[in-house]
Amino acid sequence: MTLNTPVVGMAGGGQLARMTQQAAIALGVPLRVLAGAPDESAARVVADVRVGNDRALDDLRTFAKGCDVITFDHEHVPGDHIRDLEASGVACRPGSAALAHAQDKLVMRERLGAFGAPCPAYAHLPAADPVPALEAFAREHGLPLVVKATRGGYDGKGVWVLDSLDGDAVRLVTDLLGQGLDLMVEEHVAFRRELAALVARSPYGQGAAYPIVETVQEKGICTEVIAPAPGLSDDLAIEAQNLALGIANELGVVGLLAVELFETETGLVVNELAMRPHNSGHWTIEGARTSQFEQHLRAVLDLPLGSTEPAAPVTVMANVLGGDDPDVYSRYVHVMAHDPAVKVHFYGKDVRPGRKIGHVTALGDDLADVRERARHAADYLRWGPEMKAHRTTANTEENA
Amino acid sequence: MTLNTPVVGMAGGGQLARMTQQAAIALGVPLRVLAGAPDESAARVVADVRVGNDRALDDLRTFAKGCDVITFDHEHVPGDHIRDLEASGVACRPGSAALAHAQDKLVMRERLGAFGAPCPAYAHLPAADPVPALEAFAREHGLPLVVKATRGGYDGKGVWVLDSLDGDAVRLVTDLLGQGLDLMVEEHVAFRRELAALVARSPYGQGAAYPIVETVQEKGICTEVIAPAPGLSDDLAIEAQNLALGIANELGVVGLLAVELFETETGLVVNELAMRPHNSGHWTIEGARTSQFEQHLRAVLDLPLGSTEPAAPVTVMANVLGGDDPDVYSRYVHVMAHDPAVKVHFYGKDVRPGRKIGHVTALGDDLADVRERARHAADYLRWGPEMKAHRTTANTEENA
Repeated sequence: MTLNTPVVGMAGGGQLARMTQQAAIALGVPLRVLAGAPDESAARVVADVRVGNDRALDDLRTFAKGCDVITFDHEHVPGDHIRDLEASGVACRPGSAALAHAQDKLVMRERLGAFGAPCPAYAHLPAADPVPALEAFAREHGLPLVVKATRGGYDGKGVWVLDSLDGDAVRLVTDLLGQGLDLMVEEHVAFRRELAALVARSPYGQGAAYPIVETVQEKGICTEVIAPAPGLSDDLAIEAQNLALGIANELGVVGLLAVELFETETGLVVNELAMRPHNSGHWTIEGARTSQFEQHLRAVLDLPLGSTEPAAPVTVMANVLGGDDPDVYSRYVHVMAHDPAVKVHFYGKDVRPGRKIGHVTALGDDLADVRERARHAADYLRWGPEMKAHRTTANTEENA
Repeated sequence: MTLNTPVVGMAGGGQLARMTQQAAIALGVPLRVLAGAPDESAARVVADVRVGNDRALDDLRTFAKGCDVITFDHEHVPGDHIRDLEASGVACRPGSAALAHAQDKLVMRERLGAFGAPCPAYAHLPAADPVPALEAFAREHGLPLVVKATRGGYDGKGVWVLDSLDGDAVRLVTDLLGQGLDLMVEEHVAFRRELAALVARSPYGQGAAYPIVETVQEKGICTEVIAPAPGLSDDLAIEAQNLALGIANELGVVGLLAVELFETETGLVVNELAMRPHNSGHWTIEGARTSQFEQHLRAVLDLPLGSTEPAAPVTVMANVLGGDDPDVYSRYVHVMAHDPAVKVHFYGKDVRPGRKIGHVTALGDDLADVRERARHAADYLRWGPEMKAHRTTANTEENA
């Protein structure tokens, strides 16, 4: 007789589904993935792949048959479709009501404001006549200001910082509205650094919080995650964990919730929400007793949550971005010989310059040492022996 | 452009191939598995499965096309077939010449004896007239003695301990020979405990040794692995590591080599060899910086080997055997709620009483505590709430 294990369906075939498969293998839980094409990151490694369009209701309905629970690799499955699945009795975790707050930044701001979570000032931009609204917002909150697409953005896409409201800026906003984007404006938060709070919540209502991490971004893309966030006071760490657990509870999240935070002179401010395994949690694969991918599966299956205890005093995850030479594998030899303890993760994705194609993780006791180890591995995998030239350029740009 | 990663082919679709897939996903290395049926343990989770007979040359030849290197989930692929693949230019790692020593216990004993590795006394049993040879061996080495099939055994199968050479014993041996088995006899080693040394060797010649572990067996099946072996002196640990590294080098092993050892009053004695990921190394998934599955892939791909540094002072792995009730999944809730830090591994195999169907791993500082945590999880997954009755029975049997 076979195990009576439930089937988890994940809509989306990216690297999050791919890494979820590693956890599903351990738990003996069959993972079924709805991928857009058979060569997507997860489709290359999962036995049970269905190729289809995860934005199309018919494909979602077909996919859901035989799955005990549906979860998501990204935020782009339309809420209407998820509501339709729910109405027909499919368990979607997180559900559409919670997920709306990770799909629409305006919905998120309104709900979190009502809940009392610290957020930047914001306003919706009327499509017909945005300029007076922008000018009024700038008068009240100053410049620069941040224009965001309410839906569909990720990795810095869908976010524009305006230093002034000159003709170029107005043209940009008018163009974006002309493309049919729905826009909002937010105050530009003067932050010391960015943090992320990762928590899980099960249908039973159990919550679990990982240590708060610092995330380092370059040009809107996360390049590095440091766990735990260096020098963060216990008070602020607990405040961030409780804020994320409170939001998860308030919104009825099931699965993971990542809360991207700004640390400012006066405290924490919520930036973005994600309800799925998150780049800021990749460090947990080796750096915590329970990886975020296992934790997400446990939560959506309503199993007791796993220990979030860290495995080392310091863990640093660095994203590997695509460089000019796609033959990343040939650079493994140097990276692995240079540091036998660094962990290499590759997503099996086509290599394009600047694209997230993998990550590396280093663990240890000394922050500067662990950071340098992760940085070295990620830079070498991207650039090869040319990494020094690129590092020098980056430093020069930073100093300029 | 896609990654220029080599394809690793693994003959055999058991749990070792299944867990290798977790490591292959991280490395971005495509793993192709030759499984006997689509519902085998690895076939349930690997995207690129070929169904065929890994004892049949034609199936092996077809499988090898498009693989950059072939490796093995078990020892049962006939050496003649591997030699045939090698002759046609297929990279087999380990190669047939090395693997012969894990496939035939007589070949292993002869070679290790010549190498000077400590082994029990042994003799080949002539099929035509075994009794005089048995009697002569018993006169020289005493009783009990151990009869072994030279080929095909595992998990205590193919091993018979004879306390006397009475009529029953002679009939057993005659029956085994009559079934066509090739037999050898070995002295019965009076051991304190069993140890295992796990090492890796790459084609380049790099070697890496894991900490020496203690393995606990019941009725010939490994039930528990303790890393590192409690109370083992540094001298003996280094001797065991060097012995395994020396054997790997002497035999030209590529990939992992597990050396099962007896610890006796007078030192170490080699029991068995395996050239693949091994049950005694499952603890490395969470308990070492590099899992044995990643290490095996790195070795067969001729990549630099990973750090074998332990992640905790004590790691205990306990095998989960099938019990009477196959619904193991329903017992996850208790196990995970009872100990949020214990790691559960299920192999997706049909549950049969006494069959290895998974394992659990616990990490910590205190040996007794970590052992009890692993033991509790494994026993509960097997027996459920009835585990106490079974434990009492087992204790009574041990005390009887």
